[in-house]
Amino acid sequence: MFKLVLSDTTIIKEAFNSISKIVDEIACIVDEEGFRVSAMDRSHICFVLLNLKASVFDEFKCDVPEKIYIDTNEFNTILKRIKKSDVLSLSIDSNDLIIDLEGEFDRKFKIKLIAMDYESPVPPTVEFPASISVPSNIVNQAITDMELFSEKTHFIINDEYFFTKSDGEFGDAHFKYLHGESINGSYDSCFSIPKLKDIFSASKFSDNVTVNLGNSMPLGLNFELITGDGELSYLLAPRLETEDDD
Amino acid sequence: MFKLVLSDTTIIKEAFNSISKIVDEIACIVDEEGFRVSAMDRSHICFVLLNLKASVFDEFKCDVPEKIYIDTNEFNTILKRIKKSDVLSLSIDSNDLIIDLEGEFDRKFKIKLIAMDYESPVPPTVEFPASISVPSNIVNQAITDMELFSEKTHFIINDEYFFTKSDGEFGDAHFKYLHGESINGSYDSCFSIPKLKDIFSASKFSDNVTVNLGNSMPLGLNFELITGDGELSYLLAPRLETEDDD
Amino acid sequence: MFKLVLSDTTIIKEAFNSISKIVDEIACIVDEEGFRVSAMDRSHICFVLLNLKASVFDEFKCDVPEKIYIDTNEFNTILKRIKKSDVLSLSIDSNDLIIDLEGEFDRKFKIKLIAMDYESPVPPTVEFPASISVPSNIVNQAITDMELFSEKTHFIINDEYFFTKSDGEFGDAHFKYLHGESINGSYDSCFSIPKLKDIFSASKFSDNVTVNLGNSMPLGLNFELITGDGELSYLLAPRLETEDDD
Repeated sequence: MFKLVLSDTTIIKEAFNSISKIVDEIACIVDEEGFRVSAMDRSHICFVLLNLKASVFDEFKCDVPEKIYIDTNEFNTILKRIKKSDVLSLSIDSNDLIIDLEGEFDRKFKIKLIAMDYESPVPPTVEFPASISVPSNIVNQAITDMELFSEKTHFIINDEYFFTKSDGEFGDAHFKYLHGESINGSYDSCFSIPKLKDIFSASKFSDNVTVNLGNSMPLGLNFELITGDGELSYLLAPRLETEDDD
Repeated sequence: MFKLVLSDTTIIKEAFNSISKIVDEIACIVDEEGFRVSAMDRSHICFVLLNLKASVFDEFKCDVPEKIYIDTNEFNTILKRIKKSDVLSLSIDSNDLIIDLEGEFDRKFKIKLIAMDYESPVPPTVEFPASISVPSNIVNQAITDMELFSEKTHFIINDEYFFTKSDGEFGDAHFKYLHGESINGSYDSCFSIPKLKDIFSASKFSDNVTVNLGNSMPLGLNFELITGDGELSYLLAPRLETEDDD
Repeated sequence: MFKLVLSDTTIIKEAFNSISKIVDEIACIVDEEGFRVSAMDRSHICFVLLNLKASVFDEFKCDVPEKIYIDTNEFNTILKRIKKSDVLSLSIDSNDLIIDLEGEFDRKFKIKLIAMDYESPVPPTVEFPASISVPSNIVNQAITDMELFSEKTHFIINDEYFFTKSDGEFGDAHFKYLHGESINGSYDSCFSIPKLKDIFSASKFSDNVTVNLGNSMPLGLNFELITGDGELSYLLAPRLETEDDD
């Protein structure tokens, strides 16, 4: 049994707006430390981790650790109904997740828990040679521009700039942002634009995102709450560039 | 012959926005008392009555009573073109309804009258055990929330609260609003959500709506102008709850 | 080789928003006088001319005159990405048009030049008996109202008013605007509403449009920059009115 009360509802709305595009079902772990989900998408290209510490919540009660499985689309559909002044409470009874929204009027939604049991995937450990912090909306804009001509884009970091570029049959697009951080060398990997768009549908989770990059390596994206109480992280496999790809 | 001039165009726009979803054709009666329409939808589930007294209009001339039949969708399409500063005039010539919109520029639309003749349905008389006044946007919100999991919803009024609830295969939704009126007993009836949505596409007709309810009885919804000069009323038959319905 | 820098990007965005609906490919001529395109649509109903003088641009360099062919849809898609604070630069390298957008971040797009060569059509010379200046948004509104019942509309100018009217099977629409200019006689021609809508998707190019009209003659529409530095002009052939047309 647990009861979690949250008034800063943007973070969970943004997180599940993205998570529901990546995985259909997810295991949520609630224990004394907080609320956690982690999952790998079906094509094993994208890993996502959401970690909200107990201190993020206005109220956090959890007697015994719980692991519940929910349909991410159903949960997301309800989260979308949250109004700005609403306070969200999450709890469970026997077979349901109970979502209470209290504000000008009170609403209670229940969604059935899914009966399954599997191990939550452990986040892969990757050492990145380059890490920079960029405003989330800037990266979001870059991705949107890249899709004009192609389905994939290069992320490039050198000592001065964060670049993206995409080449297509009819044209090219380039994006350039002066990152102002200390980076040695130049790093370049290529990623799927649709997957990046799924990830950045959580771009309002935090104002800045840490972009972790290497050469032909996965992309690490970390959205962290400014308070340090929560994070939403992604690991996205690079796209292989085959000859007919360009 | 008549000529009706109206500067508060929101009321007629809202009314026909909803009426056009409920019936395709309608008889409009214009006499010295005002402008009236009443109709039953084809499935005989929903009755609608619009009554705008002569005093609602900036100018109201009607020599002899008229009864005209119009296509509600054509009329609604034209009403949607009204701009805030426009003054609306309605009149007829031999076979057309003439809609004049005067504002920054002048527009005149004509739609053909439909040649038919039938009796306008008389509003059924229903005695309701429970009546409360609720902000229109609150009921509108409740209906929107109910459609997450089902196509029907219960309206419930007890001594303290106005509730709605809907149960579906994958989840439940509940809505609760403290009504602050004096009600004896508890009343519960079930209604079609799509029909409720059609009705509440007129939710800006007035700030408050009177909700009239009983047990397994029709729902009475009355939107009244604060001046007492006009009303838009609906009677919606309850949905039967069959076993496989849940 | 040329380099054109423009900070008032609205004019080129509006112009190509409309041009891309009228022609698929276009020749752009850049010489010491400025930037020019002119084209006739495939059905030879609509002629369009855009003329931006060198003085419109923040920076204008052109060593030798250039004539390049571009895909209007690709160019328009990129122009739509311009943000308000962006400064636009246009230049060419061997086979590409290079579109630079500099603002909060920098973006560079390239689109392939099309290998072709044809003469740009010369604007037909037409003498119009009636010319009036009308706010662009007013004409835009008139066209939008006319499409309720028909695919064609009459433009009419007499000594007092600018009218539009359209007749359909189910109704009529009339639009009337007091033009306040000195006109002798009355002029009436009929035009395709879809073509007019394509043209007026550039209605924000300038606040006013000059409407040039005659009897069963083409329609001349001139959007001019208030500075006199640029214009966007259209010539639209009249629609013939056949008997079964009404």
